[in-house]
Amino acid sequence: MSWELHHVDVVVAGSPKPESVPVSWLKPGTTLINCSSDLLSGRQSLNNTTENAVCSLAVAMRMQNMVKNTERWIHSQQLRKWDLHCLKLQPLSPVPSDIEISRAQSPKAVDVLAKEIGLLTDEIEIYGQTKAKVRLSLLERLKDQPDGKYVLVAGITPTPLGEGKSTVTIGLVQALTAHLKINSFACLRQPSQGPTFGVKGGAAGGGYAQVIPMEEFNLHLTGDIHAITAANNLLAAAIDARILHENTQSDKALYNRLVPVVKGVRGFSSIQLARLRRLGINKTDPETLTEEEISRFVRLDIDPSTITWQRVVDTNDRFLRKITIGQANTEKGFVRQAQFDIAVASEIMAILALTTSLEDMKERLGKIVVANDKKGEPVTAEDLGVTGALAVLMKDAIKPTLMQTLEGTPVFVHAGPFANIAHGNSSILADKIALKLVGEKGFVVTEAGFGADIGMEKFFNIKCRASGLVPSVVVLVATVRALKMHGGGPSVSAGAPLKKEYTEENLQLVADGCCNLQKQIQITQLFGVPVVVALNVFKTDSPAEVDLVCKIAKQSGAFDAVPCNHWSDGGRGAVKLAQAVEKAANQKSSFKYLYSLETIAQKVYGAEDIELSPAAQSQIDRYTRQGFGKLPICMAKTHLSLSHQPEKKGVPTGFILPISDVRASIGAGFIYPLVGTMSTMPGLPTRPCFYDIDLDPVTEEVKGLF
Amino acid sequence: MSWELHHVDVVVAGSPKPESVPVSWLKPGTTLINCSSDLLSGRQSLNNTTENAVCSLAVAMRMQNMVKNTERWIHSQQLRKWDLHCLKLQPLSPVPSDIEISRAQSPKAVDVLAKEIGLLTDEIEIYGQTKAKVRLSLLERLKDQPDGKYVLVAGITPTPLGEGKSTVTIGLVQALTAHLKINSFACLRQPSQGPTFGVKGGAAGGGYAQVIPMEEFNLHLTGDIHAITAANNLLAAAIDARILHENTQSDKALYNRLVPVVKGVRGFSSIQLARLRRLGINKTDPETLTEEEISRFVRLDIDPSTITWQRVVDTNDRFLRKITIGQANTEKGFVRQAQFDIAVASEIMAILALTTSLEDMKERLGKIVVANDKKGEPVTAEDLGVTGALAVLMKDAIKPTLMQTLEGTPVFVHAGPFANIAHGNSSILADKIALKLVGEKGFVVTEAGFGADIGMEKFFNIKCRASGLVPSVVVLVATVRALKMHGGGPSVSAGAPLKKEYTEENLQLVADGCCNLQKQIQITQLFGVPVVVALNVFKTDSPAEVDLVCKIAKQSGAFDAVPCNHWSDGGRGAVKLAQAVEKAANQKSSFKYLYSLETIAQKVYGAEDIELSPAAQSQIDRYTRQGFGKLPICMAKTHLSLSHQPEKKGVPTGFILPISDVRASIGAGFIYPLVGTMSTMPGLPTRPCFYDIDLDPVTEEVKGLF
Repeated sequence: MSWELHHVDVVVAGSPKPESVPVSWLKPGTTLINCSSDLLSGRQSLNNTTENAVCSLAVAMRMQNMVKNTERWIHSQQLRKWDLHCLKLQPLSPVPSDIEISRAQSPKAVDVLAKEIGLLTDEIEIYGQTKAKVRLSLLERLKDQPDGKYVLVAGITPTPLGEGKSTVTIGLVQALTAHLKINSFACLRQPSQGPTFGVKGGAAGGGYAQVIPMEEFNLHLTGDIHAITAANNLLAAAIDARILHENTQSDKALYNRLVPVVKGVRGFSSIQLARLRRLGINKTDPETLTEEEISRFVRLDIDPSTITWQRVVDTNDRFLRKITIGQANTEKGFVRQAQFDIAVASEIMAILALTTSLEDMKERLGKIVVANDKKGEPVTAEDLGVTGALAVLMKDAIKPTLMQTLEGTPVFVHAGPFANIAHGNSSILADKIALKLVGEKGFVVTEAGFGADIGMEKFFNIKCRASGLVPSVVVLVATVRALKMHGGGPSVSAGAPLKKEYTEENLQLVADGCCNLQKQIQITQLFGVPVVVALNVFKTDSPAEVDLVCKIAKQSGAFDAVPCNHWSDGGRGAVKLAQAVEKAANQKSSFKYLYSLETIAQKVYGAEDIELSPAAQSQIDRYTRQGFGKLPICMAKTHLSLSHQPEKKGVPTGFILPISDVRASIGAGFIYPLVGTMSTMPGLPTRPCFYDIDLDPVTEEVKGLF
Repeated sequence: MSWELHHVDVVVAGSPKPESVPVSWLKPGTTLINCSSDLLSGRQSLNNTTENAVCSLAVAMRMQNMVKNTERWIHSQQLRKWDLHCLKLQPLSPVPSDIEISRAQSPKAVDVLAKEIGLLTDEIEIYGQTKAKVRLSLLERLKDQPDGKYVLVAGITPTPLGEGKSTVTIGLVQALTAHLKINSFACLRQPSQGPTFGVKGGAAGGGYAQVIPMEEFNLHLTGDIHAITAANNLLAAAIDARILHENTQSDKALYNRLVPVVKGVRGFSSIQLARLRRLGINKTDPETLTEEEISRFVRLDIDPSTITWQRVVDTNDRFLRKITIGQANTEKGFVRQAQFDIAVASEIMAILALTTSLEDMKERLGKIVVANDKKGEPVTAEDLGVTGALAVLMKDAIKPTLMQTLEGTPVFVHAGPFANIAHGNSSILADKIALKLVGEKGFVVTEAGFGADIGMEKFFNIKCRASGLVPSVVVLVATVRALKMHGGGPSVSAGAPLKKEYTEENLQLVADGCCNLQKQIQITQLFGVPVVVALNVFKTDSPAEVDLVCKIAKQSGAFDAVPCNHWSDGGRGAVKLAQAVEKAANQKSSFKYLYSLETIAQKVYGAEDIELSPAAQSQIDRYTRQGFGKLPICMAKTHLSLSHQPEKKGVPTGFILPISDVRASIGAGFIYPLVGTMSTMPGLPTRPCFYDIDLDPVTEEVKGLF
């Protein structure tokens, strides 16, 4: 909190009581109380009203000077162009491995970076030398500051190898800030450790466009995903334990345990009082409840077959996709089928990404629906009495983590990936804080998972709806490789060598594949936002291929289309992209949401229609009955095709989109239809990444991460 | 690393090459190379040998001065009494809740504390305002410094409520440092979040003897348990995925995937080369292996029925005690029964506690035996190729976390609890670093879980054996409450109100119960270490009861017995204990280990004999055959009785100790016999602690933790 910069307590002549007013209101003649010679230090709270002695005129004059200084200081804090010490890059050829590049660069101390971008000392919490959490109080301090420009990086339908959206995001901010001297921030998602040790490797960008140190980025970071896992699994354990306790105890025994006599007194906890109020029992003395009221209070009566809350781990553990739990004798036969999801698919991750304050997060956590009771009514985390504990477990995770790019420009890492099975966007809070920090002329570049049909659609319809923020530009990332695949090239899969079609010039495949790029541009235009195509150039791409893609992109309605070489050259390789984005940001954006399930299926995916399974229909009916019918929709769909069939490349048409089931994330605030079968738990391949990962016990260097 | 303090590169006149020598060896006449005017900053590495220009005499003279200054500085760093700013306590009566007391005290910034106790800036990694990890490089810098005195806090057989060992540990260091001005360090175990949200609450001490901020201590801390969980579960996932892949692929397909062609080249990773060497295949070119060699290389041939490696969560989740995994269609019918343990019971936690360096930890991680192959040979983490990844996940967890007590004295938190199902001691590394930091005349107070029969026995036989450290004094914690229970008082259980026997004077029950205290004193004497009894006084204890316990304790061979009031008075209430401990530390300790399973059962527990189940016998035979027969023993036994039956209080005799099974933690380096049935996963009670836990979204204050 930085109260002292905005308000001082004053007694206006003739007024009996001190008032708290903004410093800018102070006029000559105002009589000031409780002045202190330490005020200028900016550390002392000014709203101390314990002493009421009126200060002398001399002190009042000094206060006025201080006010002016403070105003000047606030102004300089808010609007100045950062005086950022950028780190020099000297790219090598051939480009070394990601971890070698990361290790060769010495990051700035994170407190130095924080100061450079206008964060106050008490607004950061340092985690080691290179990571810091940023407190949300900053949003209060800078609330009158206008936001910067908001840029989204999305992509065409990717190959399973990914087409470099994170790399473009990082290359773009390196170009903006280190080369064009424009304030900019990248807001990225924290990677899941599952894929890091599985098949994908890290997600810190790559080549000369990376977040450093990449091993810190890719491993535990500041523990947010671990906190989500802990909160998610506490809630899961509470559900099954509660069912067991209700099944094995009388109403009276349950009541005596839930509302015990402590030091001779029996009392309800706050969360129990809240439950009583929801039940319409307006009593506060535990001794006065009737038997019927006791029964309603102690029994959640969860129907085990309706439990939708799953346990999670941040590990690719396929054997937990379907399990039977409760088989020990101590659980007295209450076995049931369950599953573990990957931690980043937890609704709590979605809540973290979509929340706007600590209070809002706590409210959303309480609203999580975990099951229905036997009457078909939703049972929530709040009913289980666990809201406060979940909020406590998440109290630090809500603060975005500050890191830096290879060129020393700032990055926020916050909330998680997996746009196919979740909404897959980084957090609203990180974006909001960054938009304040860059100032009106600065840029915040954030990233949406997978192709524009999934990540961007969810960014607009879910994330922007929750935040109220309006994007200025979409950067659509394409590669010659993915376009060739859409043009009919042979299949691309992780671990297998690329076929020659992808390493030799083939203009026909590129031209044919541009249909996917064209479609994704059209999708962006549906939302009314200007689009710049970033062609992420690989060394095997021919100049003719690159020119062809840019030409078709512009013909298809892109504001501009620019080849980028940040992977091999760092920010310097993305300067043209940065200039195009800056120009596009001055275009008119006529941003709008798209609404229904049918609209998304037809307008975005290009389906003829949707087909609801009986299960999906009955879930929709239930959610409508429960009052959740108006929530936005978060599709769980493969990222490897515009359709529900991963093998259908290019722009599939004429298909009927099958909705196999519908789930609800009431805390996060959306309904999610499952399109076909979507796994919520990745597996380990035969040769997982971990074969190459090692730690040098002498130098403490990490090897083999990429 | 702090090389510059110990060594400089010199060219001795006439010698052709620079050598690295300790600064104290430098004599006048030595010709120095590569001197720099920045040397005195203490930041510049001195072992740069790229330039060989010989410096002038003037520079050599300056170097000499620097050497003298450095020597003086090293000396002052090593031996000085800390100039510690202690935090004042003003205890209230009645004593407020733990979280209120914790919140009412403002901790020092952790970097200030670090400096006060002689840590260098680059030896700490700050995590927020109040926690820091300490780098192991310190052990190298202070390796010539003599250790302080080493004190163990253990207890009598406790009630299920616990008798305050952590509180005594913290009270004792508060007394030593804040009141007697003697350097001291408490080394505590990181609590499991399972019990924190379950039935036990936190473990940061209590009343006016606490680690602060207690919510930071009790929640994620610096992520060590999360790292253990991640490493443990990656290994578990690797086992099942490997079995599936071996079962569904030919040798050739496995080989092509495990040793793929990357950019035209096929190569083994380091960990695969190590496996080839273990298999006696001395080849490095993947193209030259015979079919038989390929088959041996690619097939671990794990026998699923022998898998002992379990998954873990840091949540009390009883429904995971016995589960069936692999039931999704994608796992092709390879279902098996498995379980989750509480995370702190992971062998990786035991390794963390027992390791002595990064290199040692990596070696232990690789040696973890997860199962047998179909020939009965052990299969290790190294065989699965995951050693390096585990070490990478644990690279920060190996550094102890520095915090402080309510009176501002230093505390290390490192490694975990649960002395019943694990060895339950804090880490050797924390103790070793603390012993250097306190200096020769200082004290390190560390804590062993539960009663002396379990926690202390394992401290001596396992932890001291691994560390080589010799304890000077044992503090044995007793309470009138627990003694009354042993004397035949009614049963004590968590959540239920205490019977009047425990709140009113009853000298007979106390006198009868002292048999347990006497026995635990005798156990301590078996190991040859002087014992001081700390009677943790409750406000319901009568002066006559207190006197009686102290009298009997001294008669039973305790060096001294002292009532303590740190809970209500802070360190001031433990000054007499501190004085007694200081005196006892000057006694002769004739420390020795106890060896066999039989010795522990008979001499420590008081059993007549042991009885091995057929399963236990066959496991012992197998481990002996596999070469693990000489490892120390870590008993998994209830902490609520000296015997295997929790309801047998006092000093049970004449019983036969049943060993139901025997497991091995080869990485940690012990065999653990299971005595009766021991649950490795606690459950949530009907009314878990989380009902009272809440977060104020405006002040960000945590409520309801205790």
